[in-house]
Amino acid sequence: MILTKDGIKEIRQGLGQVALFDQTLATVQLEVDAEIEKGIDVPVPKDLAGGYTHEQHKTNFFTLQKAGVLFQITGDERYSVYIKDMLYAYLDLYPNLDRHPAERSYARGKLFWQCLNDANWLVYVSQAYDCIYEWLSEEDRQALNGGLFKPMADFLSIETPQFFNRIHNHSTWGNAAVGMIGLVIDDQELVDRALYGARSVSVKAGAVDNDGGSIISQDQEMGFLAQINHAFSPDGYYTEGPYYQRYAMYPFLIFAEGLSNKRPDLKILAYKDSVLIKGVYALLNQTNSAGEFFPINDSQKGMSLASRELVNAVSMAYHYGSQDPSLLSVIASQGRVPLNDAGFDAAKAIGEGLAMPFIKPSIELSDGANGYEGAIGILRGGDLTLVMKYAKHGMGHGHFDRLGFMLYDETGEVIQDYGSARWVNIEHKDGGGYLKENHSWAKETVAHNALVVNKDSHFDGKVKEADKTSGTPYYLAAGESVRIVSARETKAYDDVEMHRTMAMVDLEELEHPLVIDLLSVQAPAETRYDLPLYYVGEFMSSNQQLQTNNDLTPMGKESGYQHLWAEAQADLTGDLYSMTWFNKKRFYTLTSVIQSGDQMIMTRIGANDPNFNLRRDPGIIHRRTGGNTVFASLYEIHGSYDYSTERPLNLFTSIADLKVLHQSAEYVVVRFQLNSGEEYQLAFSLKDESESSQHAVKSAKGQCTWQGVYEFKKIK
Amino acid sequence: MILTKDGIKEIRQGLGQVALFDQTLATVQLEVDAEIEKGIDVPVPKDLAGGYTHEQHKTNFFTLQKAGVLFQITGDERYSVYIKDMLYAYLDLYPNLDRHPAERSYARGKLFWQCLNDANWLVYVSQAYDCIYEWLSEEDRQALNGGLFKPMADFLSIETPQFFNRIHNHSTWGNAAVGMIGLVIDDQELVDRALYGARSVSVKAGAVDNDGGSIISQDQEMGFLAQINHAFSPDGYYTEGPYYQRYAMYPFLIFAEGLSNKRPDLKILAYKDSVLIKGVYALLNQTNSAGEFFPINDSQKGMSLASRELVNAVSMAYHYGSQDPSLLSVIASQGRVPLNDAGFDAAKAIGEGLAMPFIKPSIELSDGANGYEGAIGILRGGDLTLVMKYAKHGMGHGHFDRLGFMLYDETGEVIQDYGSARWVNIEHKDGGGYLKENHSWAKETVAHNALVVNKDSHFDGKVKEADKTSGTPYYLAAGESVRIVSARETKAYDDVEMHRTMAMVDLEELEHPLVIDLLSVQAPAETRYDLPLYYVGEFMSSNQQLQTNNDLTPMGKESGYQHLWAEAQADLTGDLYSMTWFNKKRFYTLTSVIQSGDQMIMTRIGANDPNFNLRRDPGIIHRRTGGNTVFASLYEIHGSYDYSTERPLNLFTSIADLKVLHQSAEYVVVRFQLNSGEEYQLAFSLKDESESSQHAVKSAKGQCTWQGVYEFKKIK
Repeated sequence: MILTKDGIKEIRQGLGQVALFDQTLATVQLEVDAEIEKGIDVPVPKDLAGGYTHEQHKTNFFTLQKAGVLFQITGDERYSVYIKDMLYAYLDLYPNLDRHPAERSYARGKLFWQCLNDANWLVYVSQAYDCIYEWLSEEDRQALNGGLFKPMADFLSIETPQFFNRIHNHSTWGNAAVGMIGLVIDDQELVDRALYGARSVSVKAGAVDNDGGSIISQDQEMGFLAQINHAFSPDGYYTEGPYYQRYAMYPFLIFAEGLSNKRPDLKILAYKDSVLIKGVYALLNQTNSAGEFFPINDSQKGMSLASRELVNAVSMAYHYGSQDPSLLSVIASQGRVPLNDAGFDAAKAIGEGLAMPFIKPSIELSDGANGYEGAIGILRGGDLTLVMKYAKHGMGHGHFDRLGFMLYDETGEVIQDYGSARWVNIEHKDGGGYLKENHSWAKETVAHNALVVNKDSHFDGKVKEADKTSGTPYYLAAGESVRIVSARETKAYDDVEMHRTMAMVDLEELEHPLVIDLLSVQAPAETRYDLPLYYVGEFMSSNQQLQTNNDLTPMGKESGYQHLWAEAQADLTGDLYSMTWFNKKRFYTLTSVIQSGDQMIMTRIGANDPNFNLRRDPGIIHRRTGGNTVFASLYEIHGSYDYSTERPLNLFTSIADLKVLHQSAEYVVVRFQLNSGEEYQLAFSLKDESESSQHAVKSAKGQCTWQGVYEFKKIK
Repeated sequence: MILTKDGIKEIRQGLGQVALFDQTLATVQLEVDAEIEKGIDVPVPKDLAGGYTHEQHKTNFFTLQKAGVLFQITGDERYSVYIKDMLYAYLDLYPNLDRHPAERSYARGKLFWQCLNDANWLVYVSQAYDCIYEWLSEEDRQALNGGLFKPMADFLSIETPQFFNRIHNHSTWGNAAVGMIGLVIDDQELVDRALYGARSVSVKAGAVDNDGGSIISQDQEMGFLAQINHAFSPDGYYTEGPYYQRYAMYPFLIFAEGLSNKRPDLKILAYKDSVLIKGVYALLNQTNSAGEFFPINDSQKGMSLASRELVNAVSMAYHYGSQDPSLLSVIASQGRVPLNDAGFDAAKAIGEGLAMPFIKPSIELSDGANGYEGAIGILRGGDLTLVMKYAKHGMGHGHFDRLGFMLYDETGEVIQDYGSARWVNIEHKDGGGYLKENHSWAKETVAHNALVVNKDSHFDGKVKEADKTSGTPYYLAAGESVRIVSARETKAYDDVEMHRTMAMVDLEELEHPLVIDLLSVQAPAETRYDLPLYYVGEFMSSNQQLQTNNDLTPMGKESGYQHLWAEAQADLTGDLYSMTWFNKKRFYTLTSVIQSGDQMIMTRIGANDPNFNLRRDPGIIHRRTGGNTVFASLYEIHGSYDYSTERPLNLFTSIADLKVLHQSAEYVVVRFQLNSGEEYQLAFSLKDESESSQHAVKSAKGQCTWQGVYEFKKIK
């Protein structure tokens, strides 16, 4: 199914000649041999994620899949015997199992606390079973098919439609599991059920999952093809964000790989303009310079291109896609390949020196099945990466963070998103599942670098409302020295129109590109704005007088404010707020235009946190009361410091001044000056995206005229 | 002086054949060529550390020293001309300078805000001058000697005796500076002044430095030889700790190197049983596995073997010491060598494959000029490093941390010491000097993993009192599977005797050595104990019910408590406190025996911190009220977690129970049990350190008998 006969032949002939493949093979052989040495352990299911029985069954399915591959490649029957023995142990156990004793899942599994994990098991074990299927006797096959695999496939589908018949990443695993075992045992009915859903059964109306997500989709679409239709935008973006996309990609790709090999008539990899391959590129583009995914929506930080899912996905995209040599450099950096046709192909090409650098462009990835429901915009310049989110909400895993952004440099996070409040699989923390602070803090608007109006989250914190709409892409420029992303959000609050424009510009005077942030808001007078910024590092200094609070109380009762302490605040005076922080080895300076009455609050996460579930990260909130306004800021990355030389370089900002020259519903014009005297101006049209329109606006410095959406220029 | 004629000959002949030397030479050449390209810049002094004029003069002296070496090695007159031109620029400037305009130093310099930096300048520039001395004309020499160097030597010595005539690291620089220029210009009077002090001048009584340290020593000892006598213990330990030792070593060693070459009659490197070479070994032993120094006393964390001072010191210890091949592995890891005889010798030996691993032993380093004034004890086992401090106070840079400890593993800090509250050279932070929180927080006992009695710091926070005494070493065992350090402190508080015994034991059942911590205290009834522990990482779970505080107020008004928030506390129930945290990739569990009435307080640093000078690090305080008592704890390092596999291993502690079986002024006996059933017992004699004595004590489990100071054994 995954290893083809021709592929195996080629792999066997090539053994010892393809370094990356040989290394991976040797590593996997050591792992599997160690497991075989330990003996077979198929415990009665009892524990949640992180617990012994959970982890053992998980170990088993990974080991079985690897043992299957080793059997095919080496022909060593130790591996096939091990698989057969293990499968018989499951055959002894499985038919006697009721659903898992832990009752927290909306779709309890049998081996695991949720069907999702049972489906993981079947996706992996069906590959192992495929590898020894021809080697087994007909009696063995009948026993295992009838006693273990068909019942499991039925359990995951017709017996649990709330799990199988959804448009959701859980269902993708379910569909793939059922389809893959169908391919192995040549059961066309199971394959069809996987592709089109378990149409004989239905879910009761109003059912919701553990995250509060609605289970029944309006149009009753279901099955693997429907997942592909719905999960990915035409750009390969997945609405739940890259953390979940990474997880979901494995069943999408591995089942597609099986279908490619066994059902080439379906042309599954060409389906929807090759969106599965595009999905792999979309994932690669949603990483920082360390290869870690942007923590959009519910995401545990640190998940990266090193994950096993991506090891499989990138080689597959190389092999089944267009043999793009830039993917080879990604695969080389992963340091291992999947032990199959795709992995061998990629490893061989790397050995032949074909790898090219993978250059991440400034790019917009559309959201929505048709690509018309918002997007994320990614700007890249120098070693900086900026991502702004104006996509769909992301369903049950979505965060209320319209027009929020994150900024990275090569050292890591500069302006961070909190990510999810969760320690995946770590039993200490509520069994490894989502913590209640994920809802009360991590999803709320104030936990993001996004505008909070009147202390309430976007869409009043209601997923259903948020899911109905998306942000509106306005403009993306990917120039050589000027990159711009600009988008609107008009539904998050009644009567409030937000339009954020972020530019990353190269200036010959500065070491790194400068980031310009212009958040234009049209809203009724006396609107209370809070604009948080989660800088990463240690506060160095600011140009304002901070008033420290010697007694801390939570900043509010709800919408995330209940988790924030105000450590200090400043009633801002003058024209600018300037603040420098340090992290790892560099200095960073925020420069913001202030208005009379503005406040800056130094915040710290951690109030109302009885189980110490939240990181004590710092932030600042720019507080303003007013009507139509613009929040204009610059983010400058400068200088360095090394603890073993203790020598700081360029530790002060180069920004001398920043002014908003014009602000209206139609335009925003800002000008800034460097300490060395140079002045730059950015003029931006918020309503007219034609590249040929002529614009003329009055500004504090006289008339500004330009053509097209924007003009960025050196004034002197 | 530093480069000998024979050495230069050998270096020139060896060019192109000694990789590490050639690489360093190429790097240095690039640096210096870039500076020459920029042109000469000798500004009028104005700024504090971190500011422009400060950093420029600093750049100048480093560049001059390197240019001198390059001239000697390459013979290229571009370098000698550059040095000469720069020196003439200083000759134009210096005679017209008054003391530096910034007035914060007790000994203001001329080029810099403090004489210390002027002395740095002269130590480096005298080397450059030496390199071109023979090349210069007699007129040039006379002009520079009379107009620049002699006035500078006089300024740093007879005109500033409060700087020159002390026993202090500042004076070491002063002595070296004056002595080195004396060697270069062959001025015997200056060399004698350096060696024996500026005896013609005196300091006014009662003078103190910026840290409040007394300037006049009782016996009026002064000069370089006196610095050596006083600065180092016979083990090479430096009472201010390794951060300052690293800084001080450079002038000690570079002047000693000059004296070795030009005044071999003094046998300076053999002086005091070769204590300067021993000092280098002491520094190497005071590092964690990343080569970073223990932040004992005032220390900025992160300073390491990579520093330029150590690059010079280790090669020198190799060349002038016993050609110890284990030093070569340290030098290889530094990746560069000094461009002199020593560096060439070391690089050549590395090239010949002579390097051996540098194994850090469990060791005690005595403090005090004669080695009788306390010590630090360092235990090493597996990848763990533990250091306990029971040394002298450390004068103006000392912390009130008797019997405090730090624990590291290969990932870094496990139990941390705060270090100093300072950002060295970073102008944002009070000019880069010590922050006021260094005094109000970092030095106080509650900022350390050390026992606080009645909410007051050791010695009531008085440096003078603390300087009078030291901790008392009791026992150090460096066994293959059991390492123990044990020491007493009886003067920090009236009527309180503390005796801390820490063991690091290998157990076949555990992944890493286990640390046992037994803090025995003899004190009056109703003494209030606070025992802080600064764990590093994110709290996972505890076995106690934490009461969260929803309003935070500082924990006290003084002794460091004013900087602590109590985030939560638990009135402890049962027999044990158990708490697990996670950091980077591992889990850590503290298990402590509790008594009825004990409290555990979850603390956070950061109260009363108007300039955000303090890190928001977590800690816990074990609070107990009572008389004689033992605080008994275990620190276990276990398991792993990786963000790209999300798979936790061994995430729960293996410790099932811990009991104090006996506690008295003479003995402490503890027993602990693992979840797997095994029991271990540690019996320790607190008063009798004979290895042959027989001991028998009553315990909750019957009579315990053993021979010698301790017995650690498996009970079952």
